[in-house]
Amino acid sequence: MKLVTAVIKPHKWEEVREALAAAGVAGMTVTEASGYGQQKGHTEVYRGAEYDVSLVPKIRLEVVVDDADVDSVVSTITGSAQTGKIGDGKVWVIPVDSVVRVRTGETDEAAL
Amino acid sequence: MKLVTAVIKPHKWEEVREALAAAGVAGMTVTEASGYGQQKGHTEVYRGAEYDVSLVPKIRLEVVVDDADVDSVVSTITGSAQTGKIGDGKVWVIPVDSVVRVRTGETDEAAL
Amino acid sequence: MKLVTAVIKPHKWEEVREALAAAGVAGMTVTEASGYGQQKGHTEVYRGAEYDVSLVPKIRLEVVVDDADVDSVVSTITGSAQTGKIGDGKVWVIPVDSVVRVRTGETDEAAL
Ligand SMILES: Nc1ncnc2c1ncn2[C@@H]1O[C@H](COP(=O)(O)OP(=O)(O)OP(=O)(O)O)[C@@H](O)[C@H]1O
Ligand SMILES: Nc1ncnc2c1ncn2[C@@H]1O[C@H](COP(=O)(O)OP(=O)(O)OP(=O)(O)O)[C@@H](O)[C@H]1O
Ligand SMILES: Nc1ncnc2c1ncn2[C@@H]1O[C@H](COP(=O)(O)OP(=O)(O)OP(=O)(O)O)[C@@H](O)[C@H]1O
Ligand SMILES: [Mg+2]
Ligand SMILES: [Mg+2]
Ligand SMILES: [Mg+2]
Repeated sequence: MKLVTAVIKPHKWEEVREALAAAGVAGMTVTEASGYGQQKGHTEVYRGAEYDVSLVPKIRLEVVVDDADVDSVVSTITGSAQTGKIGDGKVWVIPVDSVVRVRTGETDEAAL
Repeated sequence: MKLVTAVIKPHKWEEVREALAAAGVAGMTVTEASGYGQQKGHTEVYRGAEYDVSLVPKIRLEVVVDDADVDSVVSTITGSAQTGKIGDGKVWVIPVDSVVRVRTGETDEAAL
Repeated sequence: MKLVTAVIKPHKWEEVREALAAAGVAGMTVTEASGYGQQKGHTEVYRGAEYDVSLVPKIRLEVVVDDADVDSVVSTITGSAQTGKIGDGKVWVIPVDSVVRVRTGETDEAAL
């Protein structure tokens, strides 16, 4: 299994969520975050206000998936999160050793 | 070392914390999160209100542990977080290359 | 690539951010968190108030970096986050399989 983490623009969150649901993603975890990318020294506009780049609000998504689904989950996220402007986001993939569903104790692929 | 991440029901947080402390877990990091699992299309009840499943509030725990402690930490979390109802949570384990305690500069097992 | 996660004292965040920028770190993600370390049973002071150690507010940083930059990023964080008092923080390093820049679709080293 793999953990796909994506940091995206907040106003794209609904679109990403719908794209992932349409792609059959069974679960995800969402946290509010902020961050900056390579536009350091420039400003990024968020809801009409200019933010110091170190403080641009972002949504951070985590999706644990089967190895076979990584590529499609990553491209679903990048496709639906993209606006073409700086600050669109970053996605990274991390290896996962094991997964458990708390309710049932099922593990690994059966826990997804 | 391994990173154990758990996403649990907020009202189980105290119980999980006490179970982990009793099991000798030396530290953890907690973030507020939200998420959905496989009950998509159904609703999950949180504090008496029905939430769109994409928005159910959760607590996200991170515990960095020695390899030898992974199984007991995971089962302590699943045992204490379980209610038997949908949405009880998900736990996943990720490999960790190295750890540092900021105060002392100690590394790896000595930093836990 | 590697993911460096650091959990630090909130009042050290500005210093850490400046040290990382001076070291050429191109991006990072920040979340508000809380946590406890090994001082369990003792209390840690935050802004003049004593907190139950399970609730000390922390800042959680994530930085995805090239393998070649891991050591310098970790030592930049530990150097700038350190006060010498308990609760200074913990840093851990996790392997990353792949990275994508959402705007351009660039991958891996080119996406950093
Ligand atoms: N190296 C990194 N490590 C961790 N998080 C990052 C990193 N780079 C970017 N991020 C996160 O992703 C968010 C979006 O980054 P961003 O899209 O600005 O990346 P970028 O590389 O600067 O690309 P662009 O040139 O399109 O702006 C940032 O606000 C930050 O939260
Ligand atoms: N695949 C996943 N990736 C990341 N986070 C997940 C995933 N599945 C679930 N989660 C997180 O765990 C929380 C609890 O999930 P949940 O317990 O509903 O899992 P489930 O597989 O649907 O099991 P159940 O059938 O018991 O509801 C979700 O709200 C979400 O935050
Ligand atoms: N094992 C751990 N797993 C996950 N997060 C941890 C762990 N240990 C500490 N943390 C996080 O790092 C923060 C700071 O930890 P802290 O600096 O107190 O570590 P410590 O090992 O107790 O060192 P010190 O003796 O200097 O206090 C904690 O509040 C918690 O958020
Ligand atoms: Mg950018
Ligand atoms: Mg569910
Ligand atoms: Mg401590």
